[in-house]
Amino acid sequence: MTKLESLQNWVQAQHLDVVYISDPNSVGYFTNFISDPHERILGLFVFADAEPFLFAPELSVGSAQKAGWSGEIHGYLDHQHPFAMIADLIKARTSHYAKWGLEKDSLPVQRFEAVRAEFPDATFPGNVSRFVEHMKLFKTPEEIKLMEEAGEEADLAFSIGFNAIQEGRTEQEVVAEIEYGLMKQGIMEMSFDTIVQAGANAANPHGGPEKNAIEPNQLILFDLGTAHHGYMSDASRTVAFGQLSDKQRDIYDVCLEAQLAAQDAVKPGLTAAELDKIARDIITKAGYGEYFIHRLGHGIGTSTHEFPSIMEGNEMVLEPGMCFSIEPGIYIPGFAGVRIEDCVHVTEDGCKAFTHTNKKLNHIPVH
Amino acid sequence: MTKLESLQNWVQAQHLDVVYISDPNSVGYFTNFISDPHERILGLFVFADAEPFLFAPELSVGSAQKAGWSGEIHGYLDHQHPFAMIADLIKARTSHYAKWGLEKDSLPVQRFEAVRAEFPDATFPGNVSRFVEHMKLFKTPEEIKLMEEAGEEADLAFSIGFNAIQEGRTEQEVVAEIEYGLMKQGIMEMSFDTIVQAGANAANPHGGPEKNAIEPNQLILFDLGTAHHGYMSDASRTVAFGQLSDKQRDIYDVCLEAQLAAQDAVKPGLTAAELDKIARDIITKAGYGEYFIHRLGHGIGTSTHEFPSIMEGNEMVLEPGMCFSIEPGIYIPGFAGVRIEDCVHVTEDGCKAFTHTNKKLNHIPVH
Repeated sequence: MTKLESLQNWVQAQHLDVVYISDPNSVGYFTNFISDPHERILGLFVFADAEPFLFAPELSVGSAQKAGWSGEIHGYLDHQHPFAMIADLIKARTSHYAKWGLEKDSLPVQRFEAVRAEFPDATFPGNVSRFVEHMKLFKTPEEIKLMEEAGEEADLAFSIGFNAIQEGRTEQEVVAEIEYGLMKQGIMEMSFDTIVQAGANAANPHGGPEKNAIEPNQLILFDLGTAHHGYMSDASRTVAFGQLSDKQRDIYDVCLEAQLAAQDAVKPGLTAAELDKIARDIITKAGYGEYFIHRLGHGIGTSTHEFPSIMEGNEMVLEPGMCFSIEPGIYIPGFAGVRIEDCVHVTEDGCKAFTHTNKKLNHIPVH
Repeated sequence: MTKLESLQNWVQAQHLDVVYISDPNSVGYFTNFISDPHERILGLFVFADAEPFLFAPELSVGSAQKAGWSGEIHGYLDHQHPFAMIADLIKARTSHYAKWGLEKDSLPVQRFEAVRAEFPDATFPGNVSRFVEHMKLFKTPEEIKLMEEAGEEADLAFSIGFNAIQEGRTEQEVVAEIEYGLMKQGIMEMSFDTIVQAGANAANPHGGPEKNAIEPNQLILFDLGTAHHGYMSDASRTVAFGQLSDKQRDIYDVCLEAQLAAQDAVKPGLTAAELDKIARDIITKAGYGEYFIHRLGHGIGTSTHEFPSIMEGNEMVLEPGMCFSIEPGIYIPGFAGVRIEDCVHVTEDGCKAFTHTNKKLNHIPVH
């Protein structure tokens, strides 16, 4: 059964008439057509009793067909009124459009009001976001394969990045070498802005690489990933450039212990909150709990942040096919930051990582 | 008067109590803190009778302060309930929260419902998107200066790209050279995925660069831009690689004539639709009207696609300070594509472009 067929079955089971898939990421998930329509309208309309159609900006019609969408597709030009056209298309196709499902997590209020204006008698009981989110939780073997390939690209990026570290080079220059090295091999898209942060700069998680030259005897944090046929990789490594102090070494060792313990503990039946606690307890016991200021991990797939969220309070039970990051971090302001991260998929009796770059502390010599 | 003060004045004038700025781009516009919170909540709350506050993921608090936000800021951790916290903060600050303004163009239905659940007696009459959009239409001198600097970066990118064209190199390799050359100079962020398309590939506008080697005697289309302190550049050039046929040359000349005529015609008082028509009539008269399948231009500023939209049907009157692209294109399937684009800002008596790379046909020799 295709993903689209699963969605159609759900539409019928929910006794809905129409589902409007409005999030470009979800449209990509069901149609293989991945695009950023900016402010334009891109929508997949799925029915209980009629064939689906894709509605897209005219200039994307060719790309959508090239991407493998073989169903009906309707383009619109910039001066046309998309929701009026959509209403005409729906009414020409079926006489059942009273009960709608919408992706309420992403559909803007204004577009919702535009739909409602065309269908004033309709009701909108279904939040399709929950269903799509649930479907996306469980990756198929084909998806796992793409994520393994994305992981290989991230491993390649690490090896380029580690080789690029030189005294006097800036964090930004190391990022330049990583992305250039990837692009020369045809890997054109990162899944997020590549992070290289040295020393105290790394204590600001999700800050960016700076123009300052990297000094020796620091920890250097890499966090990076690629987008591969719509599937993301995301991994972090922290390496030693030169000699480390005892405290630098200690936060690395504690973070690694937490990461390995959590990755080793993953198995079906454990909850997301329990997994978070395994890593957090190790860091807290070592005295660094206050410096681990984010959840243990996030889901990953067609986006770098999806479900399951591996955090306190999330009682979701892990099941085979779920994919998420395990990324404890210790960030000591003014001193250093460490984060070690692999994304994994849950198997029948454990998990497998998508990235395989060594996690034992990598010492990069200062020449 | 700061942008935030303008917003506060508007809140009072509209007799609203609370405005929730939810779009990360708008938060950046009012606070200088530019970030991508992914699925986390980032919001600026502005009141008729109280001081504003910023609500952000805990791990972004430091960056927001570093970016210059000196007002109150509240962070939340991943396992906390942001909308309950926001409600407590608001109720501790003022007793007036009955009438809300929301950014309805971007606020997801689900988040709207979360706000409404905390404030069941509130009404939500205002769509702040229209006001923010209107404010963003008119760039201040400081903003124009940042966009000129972004334009210089785009010009630099063209010069790197033109120098990178070589027989046997692929479109993707030319993109790699452009982005690497920029990153080595500390220019880390493109405003969108760089486009280099040769020959028939360029007939698919907004398609991407491919792995095929660029062959000589083709038109090569470049469309690129950078993000500079939150402001975007965006420009297109099409160059000749080797010898062109008469028809290749003709579509270039027609497109250039349309681009120059439109750019020359810009002045306060003209409507967006009239400007579109100036370029479109030239292309239509030359027999290529059916191949110009998008609007003439889009607004630009803190995003690459904002208002004004330069298209048929838009009767908006151009005024000084407005910034938009002028980018006619001719796309002949299976043959070639041409697009020539500068972004401009409207002045008292005309317009000034942000990019200055020569538009006269650039012949790149085949060695």
